[in-house]
Amino acid sequence: MAQAKTLDDLFLDTLKDIYYAERQISKALPKMARAAQSEQLKAGFEQHLHETEGQIERLEQIFELLGKPARGKTCDAILGIIEEGKSIMDEFKGTQALDAGLVASAQAVEHYEIARYGTLKTWAAQLGMDEAVKLLDATLKEEEATDQKLTKLATSEANRKAA
Amino acid sequence: MAQAKTLDDLFLDTLKDIYYAERQISKALPKMARAAQSEQLKAGFEQHLHETEGQIERLEQIFELLGKPARGKTCDAILGIIEEGKSIMDEFKGTQALDAGLVASAQAVEHYEIARYGTLKTWAAQLGMDEAVKLLDATLKEEEATDQKLTKLATSEANRKAA
Repeated sequence: MAQAKTLDDLFLDTLKDIYYAERQISKALPKMARAAQSEQLKAGFEQHLHETEGQIERLEQIFELLGKPARGKTCDAILGIIEEGKSIMDEFKGTQALDAGLVASAQAVEHYEIARYGTLKTWAAQLGMDEAVKLLDATLKEEEATDQKLTKLATSEANRKAA
Repeated sequence: MAQAKTLDDLFLDTLKDIYYAERQISKALPKMARAAQSEQLKAGFEQHLHETEGQIERLEQIFELLGKPARGKTCDAILGIIEEGKSIMDEFKGTQALDAGLVASAQAVEHYEIARYGTLKTWAAQLGMDEAVKLLDATLKEEEATDQKLTKLATSEANRKAA
């Protein structure tokens, strides 16, 4: 019979979930950058793509620490969030509200990541994985900073233009 | 030809999205409460269900302020997040890690809501909808408080038991 699952299994499952999610995000960001009307938002998405690549590498380091192959697991949540972003891009294409919609989609993505990295960091600490805690914390801080930048953008240009 | 879409349209679209999401959440929470092992987590889910019902009423008030019928719009993001929560409930049923998984799912839900309410509040302010700003802010504060309570739970009982 299979052994009872533990926090280690939950950690690995969630690591696979966010690994899959990050790779989906790295595919979505160039499309969002191309769609963005303001140069500032376009540059923001490009910068976040660069960060996302670094975050994927950190996840691969954690898989290595665990002695497991870096493998994703389909994450329905991120697929849904990205799908909603695509609908906004289609529905608001060519309108003044497009950038506001893109910022909103990006913030939904960021908050999904903040939730997952916060959870993983807590579990890594409880599992005594100090190196993983550091890696997860570095990414968590980047995601929170990106979310704050998006909030600033939302309250300035993108929405002023749209109103 | 259709008029170009504006921030008003984006606001209404996103209002429908979160209205649908909240109603899905109100269906998921009783199942999460039944599944939870710790009394504290069970009580937390029950309390959040009660809050969610109030949040749905606030959204209905905003639809009324807009003179629009309260109608949801399928939200793929929340469906994905809830689906992932269900998988965890199935995979970790009967294990010591179940509560940790339930807390993680609930935090993914909270962060989706925090992203959406933050966005809606910003837009409502830009559209000069003062009453809606107040309603959205009240809900946003509740969601943030719930997320913080879940973080406390995650760093205490649920995960200590699981480790």
